[in-house]
Amino acid sequence: MEYRRIKDQDKDGDAMHDDVESLRAKSRSGSPSNIIPLGGSSGDRSKWKLKSIVTLALTVLTSSQAILIVWSKRAGKYEYSVTTANFLVEALKCALSLAALSRIWRNEGVTDDNRLSTTWDEVIVYPIPAALYLIKNLLQYYIFAYVDAPGYQILKNLNIISTGVLYRIILKKKLSEIQWAAFVLLSAGCTTAQLNSNSDRVLQTPFQGWLMAIVMALLSGFAGVYTEAIIKKRPSRNINVQNFWLYVFGMAFNAIAILVQDFDAVMNEGFFHGYSSITVLMILNHALSGIAVSMVMKYADNIVKVYSTSVAMLLTAIVSVFLFGFHLSLAFFLGSTVVSVSVYLHSIGKLQR
Amino acid sequence: MEYRRIKDQDKDGDAMHDDVESLRAKSRSGSPSNIIPLGGSSGDRSKWKLKSIVTLALTVLTSSQAILIVWSKRAGKYEYSVTTANFLVEALKCALSLAALSRIWRNEGVTDDNRLSTTWDEVIVYPIPAALYLIKNLLQYYIFAYVDAPGYQILKNLNIISTGVLYRIILKKKLSEIQWAAFVLLSAGCTTAQLNSNSDRVLQTPFQGWLMAIVMALLSGFAGVYTEAIIKKRPSRNINVQNFWLYVFGMAFNAIAILVQDFDAVMNEGFFHGYSSITVLMILNHALSGIAVSMVMKYADNIVKVYSTSVAMLLTAIVSVFLFGFHLSLAFFLGSTVVSVSVYLHSIGKLQR
Repeated sequence: MEYRRIKDQDKDGDAMHDDVESLRAKSRSGSPSNIIPLGGSSGDRSKWKLKSIVTLALTVLTSSQAILIVWSKRAGKYEYSVTTANFLVEALKCALSLAALSRIWRNEGVTDDNRLSTTWDEVIVYPIPAALYLIKNLLQYYIFAYVDAPGYQILKNLNIISTGVLYRIILKKKLSEIQWAAFVLLSAGCTTAQLNSNSDRVLQTPFQGWLMAIVMALLSGFAGVYTEAIIKKRPSRNINVQNFWLYVFGMAFNAIAILVQDFDAVMNEGFFHGYSSITVLMILNHALSGIAVSMVMKYADNIVKVYSTSVAMLLTAIVSVFLFGFHLSLAFFLGSTVVSVSVYLHSIGKLQR
Repeated sequence: MEYRRIKDQDKDGDAMHDDVESLRAKSRSGSPSNIIPLGGSSGDRSKWKLKSIVTLALTVLTSSQAILIVWSKRAGKYEYSVTTANFLVEALKCALSLAALSRIWRNEGVTDDNRLSTTWDEVIVYPIPAALYLIKNLLQYYIFAYVDAPGYQILKNLNIISTGVLYRIILKKKLSEIQWAAFVLLSAGCTTAQLNSNSDRVLQTPFQGWLMAIVMALLSGFAGVYTEAIIKKRPSRNINVQNFWLYVFGMAFNAIAILVQDFDAVMNEGFFHGYSSITVLMILNHALSGIAVSMVMKYADNIVKVYSTSVAMLLTAIVSVFLFGFHLSLAFFLGSTVVSVSVYLHSIGKLQR
């Protein structure tokens, strides 16, 4: 049941997507100031449209990502080194950010908001999310001493709660009572959907395992919320510049990971050892998902991201029925029902806030 | 996992409980007219208090009922004929109703509202709930051709949905959007809490099994909602008179059941064959639960009854951990979380209606 994405590292940034970017440009011309979030009603509508498009893109990309992972495992083609793939994902996102920027420079000229050069004050915070993910990924190796892989998938749903709590504390944004209830339901529903006959083992997780799972959930939630804070700090700043800097540090941290973990394999067998066409597809997909995550951070928020990736998890399972002949369990149906009600409650909770 | 009550037949009526009855009398003297449900603010408060007490009583009685069932099975003492026990439950409730009435007649005198004699028009509807339960209980024997006992326990959660839908249609009472969402969650949460490693078998239930389960859920829901309609039709009518008539017909229908199902056993081995002290406790408990259900129907509604019995199911499981050394599953924790959120949403949904 590894529907959930295996690594979160590439969830903290993005490059850009031409269609979305052009929409964003329209949105900006519609409402003269990006600093005031709720401008005119036409600005509102285009903002809503943009938010919907990036959310949909994230959902589709995340679910196809999980399907590619299942597919690549089925095909038995998982022999490449993951660190090199992660590095290429970051590099590709950097390249896409630059490509988007060069297009914008041609069309709009270089402005204060879209120039690549930056100040020390602006850039100093950009390595933090990448560093947090690195620590989290290192912890991941140790938690498996206390809990097995399916158990870890279940404990990862703590991320949902930690993201909600940190979103409230750090970004100081309020959720209504109904939205909090919906968030608890989202977490319970996702976990229910992943239940299988061995899930009860997770209850035997020792204290250290729980502690590490909670720390990892907090690190992951903090990285996500911090990325949103960075991106939203200067709303008029071009998202591609913000992404470029986020991913430059992502590349740097992944280069360190290659040196630490896979140096021998890369030196002996080559950087691209074990790559196949499916690996290339996965890298492309991860890069585009990263783009979508950043877009969601810029134009929506971490809460939308969590809902989007949770719904993607359910979509993946449904698609897997047709692609791989998976059987859906009663727990899956019950969990999906709870997640659907949660999405509904989140949306009506917003209206009543 | 037979936490849920095994028979519903004794859920449609009650006798009375002295404490509750005296409170009710206070409530009546507090607000002069029982016909207008929301009288003065002191009437409101005593109505709310009464509603809370009967709901709590139903929850405690229902959960102790399930514990008695588990206990009696563990002790291997389940050899009495169920039909005779059901008959005695109805008879006991009739007796308790008459005892309560005689006390009221002594204190308040005989009035139009508390006289036992009735009109054809009033009494004609009273056999209907008992008849519906009889049909439902007969169907119960046939559904086991299509689904096993644990599967049936899971399908019984359809009752929650059917009660909500029929409550809306027959009693024409509105639930808010949030309350509907809460109701779907209650059903999903109760089912999740009951999941075990064999639960997926229920997905293989053939079409006839689903159909019968749905028909049974509708019969049970209809009987509950119809009982509420009968009891609420004349709010000033004494509840004990209403119960007396409900249970007279309950006795009659159970007498038929004895003749049809257990005539030989009763003739050969005697009416009380296989009875033990635990059987007596169970009969007493069922009778008091019946009282509590009628009180909930009179002073609250079917929705409160469904929440009360669902929470009782969870309480039973928790108490069983201490009494019988049961292990709680991860599914139970997740289901309980969803049920708790559902109770919370139902209460805030009411305020926002």
